[in-house]
Amino acid sequence: MSDETERDFRERIRRSFARQGAMRTIGAELMRIEQGMVEIEMPFSESLTQQHGLLHAGIISTALDAAGTYAAYTLIDADASLLTIEFKVNLLSPGRGERFLFRGEVTKPGTTIIVFDGRGYAISQEAPAKLIASISGSMMVVRGRQGIQD
Amino acid sequence: MSDETERDFRERIRRSFARQGAMRTIGAELMRIEQGMVEIEMPFSESLTQQHGLLHAGIISTALDAAGTYAAYTLIDADASLLTIEFKVNLLSPGRGERFLFRGEVTKPGTTIIVFDGRGYAISQEAPAKLIASISGSMMVVRGRQGIQD
Amino acid sequence: MSDETERDFRERIRRSFARQGAMRTIGAELMRIEQGMVEIEMPFSESLTQQHGLLHAGIISTALDAAGTYAAYTLIDADASLLTIEFKVNLLSPGRGERFLFRGEVTKPGTTIIVFDGRGYAISQEAPAKLIASISGSMMVVRGRQGIQD
Amino acid sequence: MSDETERDFRERIRRSFARQGAMRTIGAELMRIEQGMVEIEMPFSESLTQQHGLLHAGIISTALDAAGTYAAYTLIDADASLLTIEFKVNLLSPGRGERFLFRGEVTKPGTTIIVFDGRGYAISQEAPAKLIASISGSMMVVRGRQGIQD
Repeated sequence: MSDETERDFRERIRRSFARQGAMRTIGAELMRIEQGMVEIEMPFSESLTQQHGLLHAGIISTALDAAGTYAAYTLIDADASLLTIEFKVNLLSPGRGERFLFRGEVTKPGTTIIVFDGRGYAISQEAPAKLIASISGSMMVVRGRQGIQD
Repeated sequence: MSDETERDFRERIRRSFARQGAMRTIGAELMRIEQGMVEIEMPFSESLTQQHGLLHAGIISTALDAAGTYAAYTLIDADASLLTIEFKVNLLSPGRGERFLFRGEVTKPGTTIIVFDGRGYAISQEAPAKLIASISGSMMVVRGRQGIQD
Repeated sequence: MSDETERDFRERIRRSFARQGAMRTIGAELMRIEQGMVEIEMPFSESLTQQHGLLHAGIISTALDAAGTYAAYTLIDADASLLTIEFKVNLLSPGRGERFLFRGEVTKPGTTIIVFDGRGYAISQEAPAKLIASISGSMMVVRGRQGIQD
Repeated sequence: MSDETERDFRERIRRSFARQGAMRTIGAELMRIEQGMVEIEMPFSESLTQQHGLLHAGIISTALDAAGTYAAYTLIDADASLLTIEFKVNLLSPGRGERFLFRGEVTKPGTTIIVFDGRGYAISQEAPAKLIASISGSMMVVRGRQGIQD
């Protein structure tokens, strides 16, 4: 893959990420874009909690879905797009921490369907990263407005 | 179940829901609380979108997880609480609409684990409700701080 | 849908079901084929158990996947076929009983992806059916050998 | 962990595996038992196929569930047992091959719930292993007959 192409997918992903209102709302930032792997980080916020003051399972899913989606974006044509078909999230430890890291990785690329896995961690300066959630999901590769309109 | 008890679980759920920062952030409101079934509604907002301007799959999951969680809350003791173990969401149609309805229903009550199913719809005054997503998930019944601390 | 077409999809499904070696192995029979809904039954057998002598979660999945797959087959063209993309199964009660019923239903038809839900029950002459498992899954509609070869 | 204990969990798992009628039926063998990781192998058989002659998604699930279950068995007390709560399987490539390897690994141990992940591969003498499926699931740790009776 040429430098040109690499830069292309990074720029494309940054632009797409910036269009996601939900990413701004949860305070998520793109930290790393590699072929087939993307990392997102976000700080804890009281505006993202469930009833015990922990990070909401749905917000964890939002970040994991985005990490997986953009990991898949690194592998598709510039004129293609992706829609999430489904995902499953396991909540492994309480979503407690100052900051969270979400990594998405492509498990199986494909021309029609891309399958990804991902993990979420509570991170801090002092302690080792703590695994809080995992995701496995699949996405459909769409071209033009196919699948986005209905 | 006495009127007293019914009122109790409704009030308990309203208080718990109000503590969820994430529900305020996504603009969700509790619309209906029945034994084993809860409905939540929210308006569309640009702050909740994915890259095509549709409602984000993760935000849909957030609302569906909450609807399922509170459906389960109607069936547990007043001093017990719930933590989501896992859920799977299928995205069935693009999350496009002015307003969305999310219904969670308990499929299998239990003393340790409660399993729920739920569905999300785009709703409007003019057109029939459109099914946009389904969820199936499980929750652990926790007592005291068990499971919430780690 | 004409009688001719209805008979067609029923015959097509019976032939396809008969080609599944796994259905013979688990002793499954097609009991009902309606548009978008299929029921399968099987007797308990010691050859299908997990370590406590209950029906194995994987065997339950095998029957639920088949019920969902054939529910979807009722809605596709005669020259199309289906491959399972993914499914999630929740085990709701121990798989104990003399006989089991598995029902698959199409939740969302589509030209590329079909989403189904299903439930499994322990059934007997004397007692009401007992819900033992639920499934939600998605399938890809394939034409020719697309997706089957790799 | 002492040699005694290690031998213990290996023997316990071999006995439990041998009680699974479903493992005999699908021709599965325990190949490797390490703490938190178990591998199972099985040959292809026409008795385990779906309608295109590929290994049935449900049979793949049966083997992956067993690999995950026994990976978790390596981490629990000798008098405890496990019941599958749920799992999700993604089918990544057609289940074609002479022989299959299924690996289950514990992602998150716990006193009540254990979460596992796993992968299935088509293997042969000549070609590299081909990833055909992934699983993520959760199990409940049960003591005595709790959870097994209902």
